[in-house]
Amino acid sequence: MKRGRGWLCLALTALAAPLAAATPNDIVAQAPASAWKAIDPHFLIMLTLEDGRQVAIQLTPRFAPIHVANIVTLVRAGWFDGAAVTRVQDNYVVQWARPDAGSQRPAALVRHPPAEYERPAAGLVFRPLGFRDSYAAETGHVDGWPVAREGGAAWLVHCYGMVGVGRDMAPDTGDGTELYAVIGQAPRHLDRNIALVGRIVEGMEWLSARPRGTGPLGFYKDEASALPIRSAKIAADLPAEQRPRFEVLDQTSPAFAQWIHARANRKDDFFVRPAGAVDVCNASTPVRRAP
Amino acid sequence: MKRGRGWLCLALTALAAPLAAATPNDIVAQAPASAWKAIDPHFLIMLTLEDGRQVAIQLTPRFAPIHVANIVTLVRAGWFDGAAVTRVQDNYVVQWARPDAGSQRPAALVRHPPAEYERPAAGLVFRPLGFRDSYAAETGHVDGWPVAREGGAAWLVHCYGMVGVGRDMAPDTGDGTELYAVIGQAPRHLDRNIALVGRIVEGMEWLSARPRGTGPLGFYKDEASALPIRSAKIAADLPAEQRPRFEVLDQTSPAFAQWIHARANRKDDFFVRPAGAVDVCNASTPVRRAP
Repeated sequence: MKRGRGWLCLALTALAAPLAAATPNDIVAQAPASAWKAIDPHFLIMLTLEDGRQVAIQLTPRFAPIHVANIVTLVRAGWFDGAAVTRVQDNYVVQWARPDAGSQRPAALVRHPPAEYERPAAGLVFRPLGFRDSYAAETGHVDGWPVAREGGAAWLVHCYGMVGVGRDMAPDTGDGTELYAVIGQAPRHLDRNIALVGRIVEGMEWLSARPRGTGPLGFYKDEASALPIRSAKIAADLPAEQRPRFEVLDQTSPAFAQWIHARANRKDDFFVRPAGAVDVCNASTPVRRAP
Repeated sequence: MKRGRGWLCLALTALAAPLAAATPNDIVAQAPASAWKAIDPHFLIMLTLEDGRQVAIQLTPRFAPIHVANIVTLVRAGWFDGAAVTRVQDNYVVQWARPDAGSQRPAALVRHPPAEYERPAAGLVFRPLGFRDSYAAETGHVDGWPVAREGGAAWLVHCYGMVGVGRDMAPDTGDGTELYAVIGQAPRHLDRNIALVGRIVEGMEWLSARPRGTGPLGFYKDEASALPIRSAKIAADLPAEQRPRFEVLDQTSPAFAQWIHARANRKDDFFVRPAGAVDVCNASTPVRRAP
């Protein structure tokens, strides 16, 4: 909403400037190498679209392990080579699947996975955000993932860019063959109703800027609108020189705490009144390509 | 996230079916004529894009009257005829302005409007949403607009599709010549830092699906990417037969209360666990073309 291109990127001079004046981006840019953690390439999918553009999806096996294992199995079996983005519903989701959904699934696929929509909070290092949430008793981060916690359970939340597993009416019908990503206001009513498995860490704009479908629920009426997916690969399976290396800001680092504080209390020049709070979906953990 | 096109639109049979099973869309579709209020065509802008597609923007003079008067003045003076969408930042905003921003402004324009970022809550019919909010003591609706209330003040909030006035660093520099709309997770940190003036009630997808800009802050690096705006008109100024007629669901109607309840407690077949709450930006008041 700033006018023109005159936005000033205030430098964070370590001693002279008060920390409060740093923007969230400044803090991320200045975070030391020790504040970054590598993303495991075994849980990183590189989707290559028809036009060669790539979308990187990080998976988390700690919340929906059977669904995630299914997706890895499907990627390795080539299920998504020849899939397409078949649905784009404004302010909601993009979804991709094989146009020939009835085709042969890999034998190793768990066809009816259990409803991995939440898990015990015990055993997770939960970093509370410290602000109210409209939906859950508490929100925060686990390994950098946006998580809600209540009554001994923890679950991933539907923030912008989060990836989940499409299913039919019955909860055990989401076998991973059809996936979606959130492209609008966090549809938190879906939390604990469907399995979230990951998030898009690069290339989100190649999906979010697709034309919206004009059929029911944003499905494309004409097959020609669907964006073909050339291939999907597990990053660890790529030759070393082609393997992308991503890092996330470690939620236990001082930089992460400073970044959350700055997100909640914007004091850079543009702001006249800091909000004093931030919701979990406005605090999506920073990711970068490893330098 | 539903798979395929098999989604069932449950009919709300007025006597036989329990109301709780109705979807939010069912409730809107079944709302009686008395539950709908006309949008004032004096506060409705029809933007026509280069390709002939239209975007309808409703304005609210109750929150930022000087900014809104400026925008009406600019539209009537032809300021936006020949403007363009010059910025698209993923999960944030689209913004439009004249490429020749230095050109002559109408004499009637208030060049340095006051910071109309909040107003007294007194005098507004505020319908509390009734659920927690991460940022404000209370959220709800005023004339169907998403509003926060705290300490005697009320302000519009930055939900998906809301329209605001770009400004420079100084708060009195947003004269209405550059506007933006939210296309991602509600950037609530902007609340009370910038003047919101309206919302997009039709044609949102023609803006939200534009390619993201690759320059700083999502500005297009190349002028060729900018989407020209052919014209902007106040709906009331159009010949009667061309004048679109929109209606919003009246926040004082029983249908509105049922719709909010259903948004917060999804019990249609897909859902296994209703959220029990909804945030104000997942409760954007329904709008329709008048039948």
